[in-house]
Amino acid sequence: MAAKKNAFYAQSGGVTSVINASACGVIETANKSYKINKVLAGKNGILGALNEELIDTSRESKSTIAKLKQTPGGAFGSCRFKLQDPIKQKKEYERLFEVFEAHNIGFFFYNGGGDSQDTTFKISEMAKKLNFPLQCIGIPKTVDNDLPFTDCSPGFGSVAKYVATSTLEAGLDVKSMSETSTKVFVLEVMGRHAGWIAASSCLASNEMEDPPHIILLPEVAFEKNKFKAAVKNTVKRYGYCVIVASEGVRDKKGKFLADAGSVDAFGHKQLGGVAPFLAEMITKLGLKNHWAVADYLQRSARHIASKTDLDQAYAVGKYAVQLALAGKTGLMPTIRRVSENPYKWTLSEVSLKNVANVEKKMPAAYISKDGFKITNVGRRYLRPLIQGESTIKYHHGIPDIARLKNIPVQKQLRSF
Amino acid sequence: MAAKKNAFYAQSGGVTSVINASACGVIETANKSYKINKVLAGKNGILGALNEELIDTSRESKSTIAKLKQTPGGAFGSCRFKLQDPIKQKKEYERLFEVFEAHNIGFFFYNGGGDSQDTTFKISEMAKKLNFPLQCIGIPKTVDNDLPFTDCSPGFGSVAKYVATSTLEAGLDVKSMSETSTKVFVLEVMGRHAGWIAASSCLASNEMEDPPHIILLPEVAFEKNKFKAAVKNTVKRYGYCVIVASEGVRDKKGKFLADAGSVDAFGHKQLGGVAPFLAEMITKLGLKNHWAVADYLQRSARHIASKTDLDQAYAVGKYAVQLALAGKTGLMPTIRRVSENPYKWTLSEVSLKNVANVEKKMPAAYISKDGFKITNVGRRYLRPLIQGESTIKYHHGIPDIARLKNIPVQKQLRSF
Repeated sequence: MAAKKNAFYAQSGGVTSVINASACGVIETANKSYKINKVLAGKNGILGALNEELIDTSRESKSTIAKLKQTPGGAFGSCRFKLQDPIKQKKEYERLFEVFEAHNIGFFFYNGGGDSQDTTFKISEMAKKLNFPLQCIGIPKTVDNDLPFTDCSPGFGSVAKYVATSTLEAGLDVKSMSETSTKVFVLEVMGRHAGWIAASSCLASNEMEDPPHIILLPEVAFEKNKFKAAVKNTVKRYGYCVIVASEGVRDKKGKFLADAGSVDAFGHKQLGGVAPFLAEMITKLGLKNHWAVADYLQRSARHIASKTDLDQAYAVGKYAVQLALAGKTGLMPTIRRVSENPYKWTLSEVSLKNVANVEKKMPAAYISKDGFKITNVGRRYLRPLIQGESTIKYHHGIPDIARLKNIPVQKQLRSF
Repeated sequence: MAAKKNAFYAQSGGVTSVINASACGVIETANKSYKINKVLAGKNGILGALNEELIDTSRESKSTIAKLKQTPGGAFGSCRFKLQDPIKQKKEYERLFEVFEAHNIGFFFYNGGGDSQDTTFKISEMAKKLNFPLQCIGIPKTVDNDLPFTDCSPGFGSVAKYVATSTLEAGLDVKSMSETSTKVFVLEVMGRHAGWIAASSCLASNEMEDPPHIILLPEVAFEKNKFKAAVKNTVKRYGYCVIVASEGVRDKKGKFLADAGSVDAFGHKQLGGVAPFLAEMITKLGLKNHWAVADYLQRSARHIASKTDLDQAYAVGKYAVQLALAGKTGLMPTIRRVSENPYKWTLSEVSLKNVANVEKKMPAAYISKDGFKITNVGRRYLRPLIQGESTIKYHHGIPDIARLKNIPVQKQLRSF
């Protein structure tokens, strides 16, 4: 029997409300295996490996690890850091394998979006080349929902549920105020390149008259006059208007609206934010309005996570370990939609080679002709992803989160 | 035995996530009384009485009325509308009593903040003067928590819970990203005149190092250099910094920061929002930052309402009816803190005469010396108000809200 190896796990890119559920899936599954000794987490993603800053997850109690499932953010720290091209510049890769060797690491799990899958792929290729025994598995995560070959990306469903719920709730507020006060409400949500998140607000509505009345997507070129007419018509018809706008809305020339603003008196570029930009336009129509920018609140709102999303986040972490234990490498677990109503899903996997640098776009068939609504086809895709609630425990009125000790592993090497 | 009379109920001012719980308390209690026939709700607050637009709540099912407890916004519509001074201009008051008479209204319940309590007081005085049999009871409501003589204002506790939870959640997100990306996060919350809402974010923290690191209150004059130094020090110390800012933050001269901005190239006043204003300042410090503006999301977030707040909102509605049935008039139910740990509260009442035009300010003892934190005394006051969760039912992944028929009562009078 081969000696037990350690596993490396790290979180990368923008964090989500359920990425720690994937961490939990990895750690709990690894801890049950006779092939894996400890899971060593990278402090701040791949930087933890480069800097030999490894966290010994075996020093945490079982209950703390279990509580990761109800803790948003990245428990071990994340990073926005792209490794250099291994062909042009090998130093970083050499260091990684030096660290892996020093800490007896035989399994590599990297939890992130497209770039992170690419990193995992490069490391798996390098391992083969060096004949270094390392099973490399990428774990999908991104609120942007743009990973290919998977029904959805863990992290997205919970943002979608937050956005749909917030649209419903704020919509009821605006509706009550509209007779004598606020008539238009703009909610800005994430999505620089794709409108998946803004689109998910459509799930707040049952009837044509329900909010959101106008959804602005990066996929649809913004036309000022068409937009203004739609706002005026909606207010005329229903008495109020709720707009959900992607941060990445752009005009015909591809220029972001948030950047289209003028400079201020000091020559500074006017502050970004699509919502305030649209609000000014609406004010000029003589309509009292309010705006909100959800920003990090939307992707950290574990208190209203989708149970479906949470389950999938845990499952891909668990499956990643199972794949690695089966001797597989260079793969990413995927979610496969088995049936839509009722929603049933299963796990599959895809070669990281195919994932790298492919972005899943929102199909044109999901967008209505006028560009302001989501079609029934789109709703059928989105609806299952927000199903189910996973209530969390509260302590003194606020969410009871995992407070990890994050004890570092003794360094063996010189610093990088 | 006196003939049964109808009761008038209406919602006024900015709505909350639990004002409909007060409506539910009124309607359910009135429906059990042999003295009250129907509860007629004013469409859009007092405007419903002026315009004789009354909604027959007896046409709703018991289960729909019960579901008001989990429905944010104002189910019958609210208004921002101040009645004219009855001494200078009697016409509006004459009309009100004409409507009350035409619809056999003997009870008047007005659910709102300071202005609405003033309106209720004036109507109660007028009723006495006219010898019109009308029991007038104001029902407290405001997210601003500025009503006097009551431990807190229904609506506030739920916003406080939302803000504390969001600060905790987004704080975990920023912390994970801070090594290589976002280092500072600004959350803008409501509170134009008082910092109660921003203050409540303090409940997210257990330790000095926990977010929020800086709270900006309207009560403390904003000093740019002091603020910038605090941000830099916090980032230096903890690696990141979370700021919660009241929309009403102002400088020494009392000028709102959100208005202090320059004009743009077209001579337009720069768009408001304290968060983007602060964000620009932080960018100039060379610190990558993100900002969010919660706006209506915070006051409509029924999905994360405080159970304490919800219970109190229902209780003041119920108690208002009980007071009226006991022949009382010109009163407002209040919440009295009986003990702090454990929090126990009971109901009392205050004369509307005393409530009118009195604003409860945040005590100076709640604010730390440097002006950026909330003291333990303040925390002890705030903590109980966010206790408990009231989970709601979901339907297809979104909150299952009451969908009222809102059937109008036949008009008896000419239009106003």
